[in-house]
Amino acid sequence: MTETITAADSSQEGTGVAPESAHFANAETVEISARETEAGRRAYELDRAHVFHSWSAQATLQPMTVLRAEGSYVWDGEGRKLLDFSSQLVNTNIGHQHPKVVAAIQEQAGKLCTIAPQHVNDARSEAARLVAELAPGDLNRVFFTNGGADAVEHAIRMARLHTGRKKVFAAYRSYHGGTHLAVNVTGDPRRVPNDFGDSGVVHFMPAYPYRSYFGSTTEAEETERALRHLEDMIVLEGPQNIAALILESVPGTAGIYVPPAGYLEGVRELTRKYGIVYIADEVMAGFGRTGKWFAIEHFGVVPDLITFAKGVNSGYVPLGGVVISEAIYQTFAERAYPGGLTYSGHPLACAAAVATIEAMREEGIVEHAAWLGENVIGPGLREIAQRHPSVGEVRGLGAFWAIELVKNRETREPMAAYGGSSPEMNELVAALKAAGMLPFANFNRIHVVPPLNTSEADVRRGLEIIDKALEITDRYVA
Amino acid sequence: MTETITAADSSQEGTGVAPESAHFANAETVEISARETEAGRRAYELDRAHVFHSWSAQATLQPMTVLRAEGSYVWDGEGRKLLDFSSQLVNTNIGHQHPKVVAAIQEQAGKLCTIAPQHVNDARSEAARLVAELAPGDLNRVFFTNGGADAVEHAIRMARLHTGRKKVFAAYRSYHGGTHLAVNVTGDPRRVPNDFGDSGVVHFMPAYPYRSYFGSTTEAEETERALRHLEDMIVLEGPQNIAALILESVPGTAGIYVPPAGYLEGVRELTRKYGIVYIADEVMAGFGRTGKWFAIEHFGVVPDLITFAKGVNSGYVPLGGVVISEAIYQTFAERAYPGGLTYSGHPLACAAAVATIEAMREEGIVEHAAWLGENVIGPGLREIAQRHPSVGEVRGLGAFWAIELVKNRETREPMAAYGGSSPEMNELVAALKAAGMLPFANFNRIHVVPPLNTSEADVRRGLEIIDKALEITDRYVA
Repeated sequence: MTETITAADSSQEGTGVAPESAHFANAETVEISARETEAGRRAYELDRAHVFHSWSAQATLQPMTVLRAEGSYVWDGEGRKLLDFSSQLVNTNIGHQHPKVVAAIQEQAGKLCTIAPQHVNDARSEAARLVAELAPGDLNRVFFTNGGADAVEHAIRMARLHTGRKKVFAAYRSYHGGTHLAVNVTGDPRRVPNDFGDSGVVHFMPAYPYRSYFGSTTEAEETERALRHLEDMIVLEGPQNIAALILESVPGTAGIYVPPAGYLEGVRELTRKYGIVYIADEVMAGFGRTGKWFAIEHFGVVPDLITFAKGVNSGYVPLGGVVISEAIYQTFAERAYPGGLTYSGHPLACAAAVATIEAMREEGIVEHAAWLGENVIGPGLREIAQRHPSVGEVRGLGAFWAIELVKNRETREPMAAYGGSSPEMNELVAALKAAGMLPFANFNRIHVVPPLNTSEADVRRGLEIIDKALEITDRYVA
Repeated sequence: MTETITAADSSQEGTGVAPESAHFANAETVEISARETEAGRRAYELDRAHVFHSWSAQATLQPMTVLRAEGSYVWDGEGRKLLDFSSQLVNTNIGHQHPKVVAAIQEQAGKLCTIAPQHVNDARSEAARLVAELAPGDLNRVFFTNGGADAVEHAIRMARLHTGRKKVFAAYRSYHGGTHLAVNVTGDPRRVPNDFGDSGVVHFMPAYPYRSYFGSTTEAEETERALRHLEDMIVLEGPQNIAALILESVPGTAGIYVPPAGYLEGVRELTRKYGIVYIADEVMAGFGRTGKWFAIEHFGVVPDLITFAKGVNSGYVPLGGVVISEAIYQTFAERAYPGGLTYSGHPLACAAAVATIEAMREEGIVEHAAWLGENVIGPGLREIAQRHPSVGEVRGLGAFWAIELVKNRETREPMAAYGGSSPEMNELVAALKAAGMLPFANFNRIHVVPPLNTSEADVRRGLEIIDKALEITDRYVA
């Protein structure tokens, strides 16, 4: 279990077994002063002495220092410039240091940094208006949280109190957050050490055409069988016990496996049929990542609750939330909602969200992401797949793509086991970094998830780096 | 249950049944332009249309608009100036808009707003160094979260994995956060609608001299009996099942009931004796609130984990965390810690923490809080208690005080039932607001919790407002 989690961690963080910084031979060295580099060294020492890191064995870490970041680039501790094909943890949808968002944060900081959640604040009100405007259907009320995990926690609470039921259905191969309930809803190896069997969560097999749990050979078959499986499980568990079904509209860290046609529509029908609250988790897929404001728009489905975070303000200030349908709002119209937090609707975070949404609209950033997906990343990855026998599948939407690496295209044996890493994947990640890229890797996959406003030229350069590096994994194909 | 929560909510928010803004007759009107007031009205309308509020029945809310805030004052939607005796939710320890913290946020925003948690960042490193320096004993490692609730969630996770046990001991009359596990550890009415009996939490009776659960008549007796009760429960539940004991060093929203001499020392001894991780929750009591950096310093006790949030940067940017002892750090030195979050060690939040801690040191703010407690608030409240028969007890430390209101000093019958409100308390809260104060009320208590750097003159003015308003509750004394 320890091994599994260590591996999941390093690949989730896109570091694998990190190469030494001396490997970054091809990256440019620009503009970083000796003073900055020295400050970076002190930061590194203090980090090793005092900072406890997420998802990690603390003593074995060799974290990368980031001295600066701008647009789609970061500079490491040696001043080397790296193309950010990770958007950090797929959150800087608008890139680093977008001037409009930075200015909005600075202005709001000068005006009013914080105020208790029970009061009315203009930044909070405007952020709620914009999020409600973007959300589909009658999802017009916004409960702000600090991030995605607490958004999921509160969405489940709303569903439980709305229905009077307890159980939550969630998919294997999913990620929903790090707090106790959120990590128990999660369907990936990070749940395992946190699972005491006490959370009332039931995991089902999702539709995943490339590695079908149902023996499907076509997408239509996968949709039909996955929905039959889901309905069977609902009936066998007892619909009257099931409060919510939570599903990433396009599952993210778990593999960017876009649902086959008809699947989410079917999930919507089943949840409606059995009175189950449908929570669409859009923490990673939302706010333009797939080329639409919310990923679920691709499928024409209106869920009951949407959870969001990350892209809402690119993580410039911690923010998440739940968008709430009219029916669930009405449950808490006269009856108190028994949940809250000190920083709900934080003015600085909300001002950043307002500026982010406005900048994304003004600059057509969501449309650019859609364009990149259709014209650059999609075609580019499909060409790459043709050239490299280690590529089992490429898939995605917008600026949200996965390359699934295999040792054998017929058997689809993954280049690293589920929940683990492998020397082959570590070598690939090291080569990407050496070529000047900050990649996002998970198990046997490399995700192509740059900021949505990355230039066509930078995206093409990134694809070239990947194209070249895949010669490494090709050597391990049986 | 609904009624209970509604009441708990409104009193927790310090609003009770809010008076109409026209009641604020005595507050000054200053400097607020017609344009600002108009913007506030639009913010109010959008809030009612789109913002879902914490701990509230949504349709019945009449929230107060805050147009501005500065130091120990806020201006409401009509431009009336109110003395903030709540520090919002007891988080703005440094007051509103402290220029050094605002400048640090603006500077960091221009430099680097966000970076993924796996990297090294100078603001994060320096914040961790400062927090570790302030923390007692060998608590030298800092895991940053977004707020107090997730700090509690992760502290419990660390304790469970460190001990290999599951159960958590927590006190009744406590608050530990709003996410599922944190609210289940909580011992106040807000837990009840969220309690499915699945969280592995066992609640014990805390030492609370004024309303002793043990029939004690002296503090020494209360300490001795409360510790005997705690040890009995540990033995009866089975120490080998108990991972952690979590306790606010001075319980906050639940009543600012300072532990009697020897109690926390005894808790430390018992937890050590039975191999239980002692988590000191300092989310509200920490960062100077009690006149010391951490409240537990008053008792000379070193816990295994400390949770913090709020005062660490006065909530200017969402931030919380766990300070970790060497032994628990070592558990995760070679074995991965299975928890994390995208915004862990957020640069903007950490830069605000660095500036806050530095400003508090430079300006002697913690010492000022201690001074206020000993020389102004303490003596002032004791005088008030002598004059007003509705005051059952005053108690506190630093800038952290409670006035417990009763209908009868002999029977100690509270002015509002536990978990509820009452017309008497609502009338009192309305009078405080009408006199130009933003108070913090909970059940039958008014808390005196101004920013730590509130001037002596402003504190005295606040105490005068309270002194006058208590004539209302005096009328209801039997």
